[in-house]
Amino acid sequence: MKNPTASMIVIGDEILSGRTSDTNINYLARKLFKIGIDLKEVRIVKDSKKSIICAVKNLKKSFDYVFTSGGIGPTHDDITTISIAEAFDRNIEINKEAKKKLKEYYSKKGKKINSSILKMAQIPLGASLIDNNLTGAPGFKIENVYVMAGVPEIFKEMVLNILHNLKFGKPILTKTHIFLIGESEIADPLKELAREFIDIKIGSYPFTKDEEYGVNITFSGASFELIERAVNRLKSVVENKK
Amino acid sequence: MKNPTASMIVIGDEILSGRTSDTNINYLARKLFKIGIDLKEVRIVKDSKKSIICAVKNLKKSFDYVFTSGGIGPTHDDITTISIAEAFDRNIEINKEAKKKLKEYYSKKGKKINSSILKMAQIPLGASLIDNNLTGAPGFKIENVYVMAGVPEIFKEMVLNILHNLKFGKPILTKTHIFLIGESEIADPLKELAREFIDIKIGSYPFTKDEEYGVNITFSGASFELIERAVNRLKSVVENKK
Repeated sequence: MKNPTASMIVIGDEILSGRTSDTNINYLARKLFKIGIDLKEVRIVKDSKKSIICAVKNLKKSFDYVFTSGGIGPTHDDITTISIAEAFDRNIEINKEAKKKLKEYYSKKGKKINSSILKMAQIPLGASLIDNNLTGAPGFKIENVYVMAGVPEIFKEMVLNILHNLKFGKPILTKTHIFLIGESEIADPLKELAREFIDIKIGSYPFTKDEEYGVNITFSGASFELIERAVNRLKSVVENKK
Repeated sequence: MKNPTASMIVIGDEILSGRTSDTNINYLARKLFKIGIDLKEVRIVKDSKKSIICAVKNLKKSFDYVFTSGGIGPTHDDITTISIAEAFDRNIEINKEAKKKLKEYYSKKGKKINSSILKMAQIPLGASLIDNNLTGAPGFKIENVYVMAGVPEIFKEMVLNILHNLKFGKPILTKTHIFLIGESEIADPLKELAREFIDIKIGSYPFTKDEEYGVNITFSGASFELIERAVNRLKSVVENKK
């Protein structure tokens, strides 16, 4: 049986202008990898209705899960919710449960909720909420699309709140081995190895650091025993080259 | 006149598995922002021919420039060049100039070029080369698509080598102001401000740090004088709220 597939949409002009460096992609990628959900594509799009709707419509039919980050705050530039609603052809309304959560959060801080805070309780009809105990304002889920905040602390909190409800796959086992050798010297044996071990995916990632250079070779597959055999084969080939 | 538009394709399973955290997106985004080229979309795709070809075909017709990173090394998992060639329906061949560059680079290190190194001289027909003085192996450009390495040091070097040949736009002027106030308290005045200053794009980015919270407000536009007026207006509104 194949692993579930996923894609991610990062929504934010601040990432595309370079003002902010995204960290949510790597966080989600590592979490999904661990539970055997294959993240197949990520798109970073502008805070524009058209871009968001286009990405959502496109990805929700191609992958089992779509996760979005960004654009669900209280200000005028937060247009993710309305865009997602449009992508699903649904209205948005004040969600009672969301309003209650916001009221509780702000009353603890001795504040009343105003119209801007209430904006964060506007949720597309029929969506279920994603909890956020940090700032009260929830994310939401419609069908296979999970809409979450962009602020990294809140994004992480929301991801942790949804993970256990996803359909887990079989985690891909991986082992990385570092060889202090030029990538082009190891390319031929790697090619042969990849042909021989067709069930093992072999990745090659060269690096340079402090005048030293080498290559990280990753071995991924369903069996550690097979991975171990591939690693040992490559080690002996490289040893003989020296 | 509108600014040129751009998109980026990051090619690499290692990013999607979370093994590696990308840094090339932010580097390119900042460089493009400075010269007035609007980065509109980024896609991160797998090391798969189908994914690469689909992204390239899609983006090259939608944006003035497409920049790719990753997958042009000497190993079996480097399939960007062949995929780009297919996307443009072109053959690949050993490029004489690229071969010469590789020979020079490796002869300086006292090494001869083998078939794996020669793989990096295989370039789609009619493409022009993008220099890489760090490791000799060039990137290339076909029409509006710039194909570059994934290793951050080499990617940076290649970006610097192409930037001056791009069509510059008018850089967007930006000023960021920090307000130590909850985002929902500033949302209403921001909305009014955005309506009044329609030529200024106002972005709101909340943060929490060491128990403190606040919001970065960015003002972007074509005139610093107008930006300054918007900033001052917001400052006085916030001051009156206290």
